Amino acid sequence: MKLYGKNPVLERMRSNPQSIRRILVEQGHEDHGFIAQKAKKWGIPVSAVPASQLLKIARNVNTQGIVADVDDFAYVPYAELLELAVSKHLVLVFLDGIMDPQNLGAILRSLGCLGNFAVILPTKDSVSVTEAVLRVASGGENYVKVSQVSNLAQAIVKAKDAGFWIAGSIVEDGEELFSAQLQFPLGLVLGSEQKGIRDVIKKLVDLKVTIPMNQSRMSFNVAQAATIFAYEITKQKKR
Amino acid sequence: MKLYGKNPVLERMRSNPQSIRRILVEQGHEDHGFIAQKAKKWGIPVSAVPASQLLKIARNVNTQGIVADVDDFAYVPYAELLELAVSKHLVLVFLDGIMDPQNLGAILRSLGCLGNFAVILPTKDSVSVTEAVLRVASGGENYVKVSQVSNLAQAIVKAKDAGFWIAGSIVEDGEELFSAQLQFPLGLVLGSEQKGIRDVIKKLVDLKVTIPMNQSRMSFNVAQAATIFAYEITKQKKR
Repeated sequence: MKLYGKNPVLERMRSNPQSIRRILVEQGHEDHGFIAQKAKKWGIPVSAVPASQLLKIARNVNTQGIVADVDDFAYVPYAELLELAVSKHLVLVFLDGIMDPQNLGAILRSLGCLGNFAVILPTKDSVSVTEAVLRVASGGENYVKVSQVSNLAQAIVKAKDAGFWIAGSIVEDGEELFSAQLQFPLGLVLGSEQKGIRDVIKKLVDLKVTIPMNQSRMSFNVAQAATIFAYEITKQKKR
Repeated sequence: MKLYGKNPVLERMRSNPQSIRRILVEQGHEDHGFIAQKAKKWGIPVSAVPASQLLKIARNVNTQGIVADVDDFAYVPYAELLELAVSKHLVLVFLDGIMDPQNLGAILRSLGCLGNFAVILPTKDSVSVTEAVLRVASGGENYVKVSQVSNLAQAIVKAKDAGFWIAGSIVEDGEELFSAQLQFPLGLVLGSEQKGIRDVIKKLVDLKVTIPMNQSRMSFNVAQAATIFAYEITKQKKR
């Protein structure tokens, strides 16, 4: 798969250079020398190519003149993720039915910034970590382990068996996030904007939580909700 | 200007129907009857048009089969906004150099959800409230007054003269948002991702605040930062 843009490529070079196969830089690009120097250290080939060739590769995407060929995104097996979450005190984020790559990308960026989160996606009826996701994640994918599971409800049950306490974000009538006392180790469930959390998942949730809103007719998109939850969780975890 | 999509059009019909000139609905759209009924109350003409015509109007935009012609966005004169902010206890959000419509749209959505915010944009070197912004704002524009000012620094000085305390978001080395004690009435300054807050503005800030991050190499985009600040501000204001 491809990674587009200066920051995503540089971030990948810092955190996971082994996954980069080659880098294409637009001819005459001001960062060519800098990138070539960094890439040399890891034995990554860098080629200067005409703008027209990059345009052809990237179609509508703004490459900022830099594109990398990278290995497919490496998911972590769920059993391994769960062990890691226990030992490293990660917060698990279960995404139930997120379809929009823009939203998953923004979620990975937020969770990557705040740190110490892991994401679990169902294999069915869900976006996966695609090129479009990585473009928005802006490097966040390097700091957030992601698992794909065939049955999200079962994965949540396994987390509960491992001692995780499960909070679920609902749009109305949950406990107010301002005053909710979260417990750790914590798993957070977020549903899609249209459908929310499915009933089969909702009944596994220990505490339903709502972001207090002044305008009941409005709603956050799921990435904004994830950002707010991740902030509040990080704050409570630090105490 | 045009408003695209079911929710943005319905939200506008609820909160500011006078600004809608006409509504176009795709022929055979399941919500045609519902929308026509709502629109009739306000004397707004609704026409069913072929999908091809909507496609032509909207180009790449996903209209969900619904487009409205609406008045241009109505900015509020700054003096009026400031008075309103004092009397209604609004938090002022000064956006210094935000260029991306996607970001301004997401900011209006977040601030609209949480409520009781107002936005101030410079006329120069800044995005304004365009169609692209409204698409992302998802109705948030109905709940956030916006002013355009020729000189953002002067506007901040006027807010300070009116008793507002000014916090500024900086990427590193500010007071941690987790523990920062904000004071009200409050103005918040957010800069662009690339340049941050300009120096001429930074020196007007009473407290520089940073969202604590685990990954110093990563950064939130300005809309994510705005969402987190708006959440924390709302929480502290409620106390």
